[in-house]
Amino acid sequence: MPAPSKSSATPPPASRHQRRREKTRARLIDAARALVAERGVDAVGLSDITEAADLGVGTFYNYFQSRDEIVEAVAEESIESLGARMDLMTVDMPDAAEVFSSSLRHLVRHAISDPLWGWFVVRLGVAHPKLIDILGPRAARDLRKGVDSGRFTISDVEIATACVFGALLSTLHHVVSAPTQDGTDEVFAQAMLCMVGVVPDEARVVASRPLPPLPEVSTPQ
Amino acid sequence: MPAPSKSSATPPPASRHQRRREKTRARLIDAARALVAERGVDAVGLSDITEAADLGVGTFYNYFQSRDEIVEAVAEESIESLGARMDLMTVDMPDAAEVFSSSLRHLVRHAISDPLWGWFVVRLGVAHPKLIDILGPRAARDLRKGVDSGRFTISDVEIATACVFGALLSTLHHVVSAPTQDGTDEVFAQAMLCMVGVVPDEARVVASRPLPPLPEVSTPQ
Repeated sequence: MPAPSKSSATPPPASRHQRRREKTRARLIDAARALVAERGVDAVGLSDITEAADLGVGTFYNYFQSRDEIVEAVAEESIESLGARMDLMTVDMPDAAEVFSSSLRHLVRHAISDPLWGWFVVRLGVAHPKLIDILGPRAARDLRKGVDSGRFTISDVEIATACVFGALLSTLHHVVSAPTQDGTDEVFAQAMLCMVGVVPDEARVVASRPLPPLPEVSTPQ
Repeated sequence: MPAPSKSSATPPPASRHQRRREKTRARLIDAARALVAERGVDAVGLSDITEAADLGVGTFYNYFQSRDEIVEAVAEESIESLGARMDLMTVDMPDAAEVFSSSLRHLVRHAISDPLWGWFVVRLGVAHPKLIDILGPRAARDLRKGVDSGRFTISDVEIATACVFGALLSTLHHVVSAPTQDGTDEVFAQAMLCMVGVVPDEARVVASRPLPPLPEVSTPQ
């Protein structure tokens, strides 16, 4: 049995080290996010990231093994946490159409309030596996829920998921590029509801229901 | 008044020179298309293109002023000609829903029969201005035609255009990535018809109508 550490009552030195590590990691993550948002993922090299973060390449390798790995980490942190909050918001919603609509509306609003996030997602693009990994299963789950409850009429969930995903990215591109975007979230949700087989009048009603705020989710630091 | 050329009866030397120029230009275009399809537009530099075409950088500048200019030329040649053929195919179609559906189905089928073309379009991505320039106005025109004839119900043509565009790119990504794609063109067209307000049963009927072949368009060489 190991002896209890003498410093167990006060923050151990490891913790300060840990905080510094997190700070450095966050600098790399922030730099990568901004660069990808600006230039597109394929144009950002490892050295661009270290230069923007004002850190050495050796330091980079203490945190990530490659350019792709840090981009995946940015995607994970930028989108997974939003996905988790949407899951929590919709978990008790009885209507599958509202689940689908509310999540899509929040994604559009998030890009309007945080254009850097919007550009990052847009620049990752429809072919980026990480984006598909995070958003794809959620969209497919929500679509299946709608089909199972008789709310949606879809002949192929996989194609419908791809369509929602692509339409979302293109709409995010639209909102981060154009000057005013009031109501785009509703218009987009309405289009997606129609796409999955909700009749237009009903789609308009569902898409304009009051949008509940996204709950905060405590993430382990 | 200039004297008539002595060589006017036989092909002038300029013509051979012209043919060689066209051949060299086509080599550059083909190399650029393949590289963008493989790596994404942001990862392809001017020197990658000249290397793949086995031509010098100096030669490149005899044809294009920059990497962006050749990518735009590839996009123009790859997509504009297809757009012109779709225009011709649909010009006499009385039903706006069929115009829209037939064009989308041909785009999906084209990516299935020519995956390099599909990857090129997918890798250009939802944010590429040239792609938006070529496909956007056509989609918007077809959507307006549907709205004007009472066939479509859309609250915002611009957002609907963005959604169609994104959904198309994502579906093209799906068809160039997945092994079998029979009927994807119909499923996709059906989803898009629903999205613009055609009721699901009617969308299924329109999307599965016999698809007329794309007419050939003679392009000036």
